[in-house]
Amino acid sequence: MFKVAVFVGSLRRESINRKFAKTLEKLGQPSFAFHYVELGDLPMYNDDLWADPPASVLRLKADIASADAVLFVTPEYNRSIPPVLKNAIDWATRPYGKNSWAGKPASIVGASPGVIGTAVAQEHLRYLATIIGLILMGQPEVYFSFKPGLVDENFEVTDETTRQFLESYLSRFEAWISRVGEPKEA
Amino acid sequence: MFKVAVFVGSLRRESINRKFAKTLEKLGQPSFAFHYVELGDLPMYNDDLWADPPASVLRLKADIASADAVLFVTPEYNRSIPPVLKNAIDWATRPYGKNSWAGKPASIVGASPGVIGTAVAQEHLRYLATIIGLILMGQPEVYFSFKPGLVDENFEVTDETTRQFLESYLSRFEAWISRVGEPKEA
Repeated sequence: MFKVAVFVGSLRRESINRKFAKTLEKLGQPSFAFHYVELGDLPMYNDDLWADPPASVLRLKADIASADAVLFVTPEYNRSIPPVLKNAIDWATRPYGKNSWAGKPASIVGASPGVIGTAVAQEHLRYLATIIGLILMGQPEVYFSFKPGLVDENFEVTDETTRQFLESYLSRFEAWISRVGEPKEA
Repeated sequence: MFKVAVFVGSLRRESINRKFAKTLEKLGQPSFAFHYVELGDLPMYNDDLWADPPASVLRLKADIASADAVLFVTPEYNRSIPPVLKNAIDWATRPYGKNSWAGKPASIVGASPGVIGTAVAQEHLRYLATIIGLILMGQPEVYFSFKPGLVDENFEVTDETTRQFLESYLSRFEAWISRVGEPKEA
């Protein structure tokens, strides 16, 4: 079982990206254990705060350190990623020489009600993922068009083709972590 | 005289981008009146907060509305812009149909101690600037390499060539605002 630190890029209560993450979590059992990283209490990045680092920042770095892999579930804001994700990215790369992301297997997905399904935001995030040293899975791409009824109130996918696609995505992610991640203790 | 809403993308006290902004402010008198937009007290973007919008968000939108132009002074964080700028960008584009940035003349500059002078962060910001409907001045580009002694404690540029370049940049920005901005009352 792989521990996955999950970064949902929306803070709103009824976030469809959070629902999508919970859908993946359910489909991914028992191969994955999802941990939802708290992003809402991180202060806006300010280099001065390293003099006495906020508990939320240290917790963020510990959450990444203890995970086998990282999963971003991003909405699209103005054709890029939300500030809450850039903030987490920047905090965890610091202090200099202590980049928490380096060498972690990672994947990016996103959900939107619209037709392009966060494709442009994901592209920006892919770029950042390489800059911060994640080992990013490129395929399959997941641009999830969150239509009413596609996921029910128990986070079950109601459409068979969609469910199979997401299961196949999760299998690929599991294989990716096995291949590129830190060797597991025997 | 043009009122310029200035967005400094760093919150730290000794920010070189803030010093650079103050240097430009001094050189730009009396053609420009700089207003430094407060970014540190904006909450992280959360769509739910529009139900009862924070005063800091309404103030941000009013600051942009009352300005003749917008100036971004950005550091580079992980080869992109800092979260504090993306956050301001996203807040001010909302609510839907009330994008505060639309049609404002704008320019982007940045300072760093290093050799590339925020060039990559600026490129990301140029992209976002077009997405959010700013009327962005493309030239001249300003990648300010902030070497010790280049700006003194009174925000005076000590090197003559650099001073002339920045004065020429400011003249171009003034002409840009005159050309593309809202017609001034007679």
